[in-house]
This record gives sequence, structure tokens and C-alpha cells, in this order.
Amino acid sequence: MQFIVERVKELISITEAEEDILRGLSIKKKLAKGEHWLEDGDTCRSLALIEEGLVRYYINHDGIEKTYYFSKRGDFVCDYESFLPQKPSDKNIQMLEDTSLYSISYQGLNVLYDQLKQGDRFGRLGLEAVFVSITQQLASFYRDSPEDRYRNFLSSFSDIAQRIPQYYIASYVGIKPQSLSRIRRRG
Amino acid sequence: MQFIVERVKELISITEAEEDILRGLSIKKKLAKGEHWLEDGDTCRSLALIEEGLVRYYINHDGIEKTYYFSKRGDFVCDYESFLPQKPSDKNIQMLEDTSLYSISYQGLNVLYDQLKQGDRFGRLGLEAVFVSITQQLASFYRDSPEDRYRNFLSSFSDIAQRIPQYYIASYVGIKPQSLSRIRRRG
Repeated sequence: MQFIVERVKELISITEAEEDILRGLSIKKKLAKGEHWLEDGDTCRSLALIEEGLVRYYINHDGIEKTYYFSKRGDFVCDYESFLPQKPSDKNIQMLEDTSLYSISYQGLNVLYDQLKQGDRFGRLGLEAVFVSITQQLASFYRDSPEDRYRNFLSSFSDIAQRIPQYYIASYVGIKPQSLSRIRRRG
Repeated sequence: MQFIVERVKELISITEAEEDILRGLSIKKKLAKGEHWLEDGDTCRSLALIEEGLVRYYINHDGIEKTYYFSKRGDFVCDYESFLPQKPSDKNIQMLEDTSLYSISYQGLNVLYDQLKQGDRFGRLGLEAVFVSITQQLASFYRDSPEDRYRNFLSSFSDIAQRIPQYYIASYVGIKPQSLSRIRRRG
């Protein structure tokens, strides 16, 4: 459990009693490559923190999977659009590698917000970081060529780019795998 | 000042003493149609809350303005990517109508986070709402046709769609104004 405690301490100060609350609300899980944390139609009932491994977010559309985000060690994983109102999701979250993570339920997270002195600060700071990342990605769709979006991908995910299959990267960039191959040959 | 107090109270409970802190940190401003709240190259030094009016967010790219978001009465306006680290922005925020708003500086917002009992909760809840909106918009780029993105625009901005010029709507959808005209004729 020490990993989740240390990760939370990167964002806020917590007392030893609060560490115990956090440990009590966290469940360690292991998911194999290919397994899902969330499938569309289901409700996202927990927030996860990745200790080891890699996941992708994707949307199913007319039988085509559109991969739009990746998360790695130290990242919080959740579909907020489903999680916050506790309603069914239209998104999928799948393991790209065997992954170990800590899970905190919707109710558990709200206990943390309420009972930790800086619980809401933890929520605010965690959200600020991912909000900036999502905004950059959205802006890139408006502003950048596929070449530039691929460069942005390499820069945003420099530490994990080598571990992600090319067809998922092409999907993230918004192009066909053949087009990504051309960009890589030119690059 | 009552408008900003009421807006904050939609998210959190505040005491009368806290209301006074909030009023003391808020400055009411009026900006004319066409004026900017933020121009690229400048640092976003304040968060704004719109009381009346309408604004657009856009990115300049090779001399072309790409409009990617709109905000209206009751919305908080900010480029977090610039605001959080207090570094120069690559975005622009411009009034589409004569607009009255309340401004809170970066330092002032941090005072609110620190001194209001539920200050961080205010930040968390405010951010959660806009995070879900941005995530939906990003997902739509991956999943939807231009027609569907236009429908999403009408649904997300139903109350202000009539007040936004067509070429800004086309930019938001990610198509040329002529293509938007075709979609509207077919629709």
C-alpha cells in the first residue's frame, strides 16, 4: 500500500491517521494484458492508481476502436464522465500490459474528500494536472497537422512511446497506420 | 458582487465572513465586444466569472484563428495551461459580446483555496464540471462525423448557439463555413 500513500503525498500532506484511512479504502488489484478496467455500458465505479503497467482509453464507434489516451505508472485512471454522476460509460479502459493498480471506490473517494484535511485539495490538484493534459490534446486537434500531433504524442508520452503498438499510436494521432508509417519514415 | 457569491454558493457553503473575503478578492470589469481577456504570448493572470456576455477561446495558427470553445453567463474563464504555472499562453480569449465579469487574480484564488473552509472543494467541483465538458469534446473528435459534432455543439451550447457567428461554429466543429452551411441545409 505504500505506493498509493507516497503518490498522494506528492500532492498533499497527510497525517499517519489519514494514511490509515487511505490504506483502508484502497484495494490492490492485478489485471492481465487485454483485461478491461471499464467497458462501455458499464458504470465506472472506481478510481485506479497504476503502480506498474500501461492502459489505453478507447471509444467503440461502428465496430472501430478509437484509442484516445494512455496512462502509466503513477497516473490516476477513471472515466469522470461516468464516475461523477455514476451513470453508464461510453468509453473503455483496457490493459496494454499486465498491470497492478490500487482501486478506490466512488464512495471511498468521497470519504477521502470529506475526512482527509486536504482531501479536496488532493482532488483539485490531481484534476488540474490531467485537465491541462487533455486541453493540450484538444488544442492540438484544432491547430496541428498529423505530423505535429505525432511529435506531440512523442513528447507527451516519451517514457512509454516504445511500449505502445503503432496502430494505437496512429489512432491517438487520428490517422491510419499506413500514414503513421510514412510520417515515421520521413521523420 | 452578489452574482459571484451566489455562483460560488452553488458549489460550496460559505460563511458571511468568507463572503467578505470573496468580495474583497473580486474585481468587476466590463469588456467590449472584440476586446481580449487573454492574448497569446501573455500570461493568464486571473480567473474570470462571466455575469453577462459571451466569449470565445481560439488558437492562432499560421494566421488562421481556430475557435475551440465558448463560455457564457455563470462560466469560469481561464487558460489553465498558462494560469497554473503562470507562464505565457498560446491561446486567446476574446469577447463575442459586450461582457461583464468578475476577475480573481492567481494570488487571490490561492487565498480562497487556503482561507475558505471549502476553498479546495470549490476548485475541485468547478474543475470537475469543465473537465467532463472538455473530455466529451475530445471524444467527439475521435468518434464523430462533422454532422454529429455539429449536433453535439447544438446540444452543448443550446442556450447560446443563436448568438455565435456561423464561422466560429464551423471552426469549433472543425470544418469550413461552406461545409457547415451544407450540413445546416440538410439538417
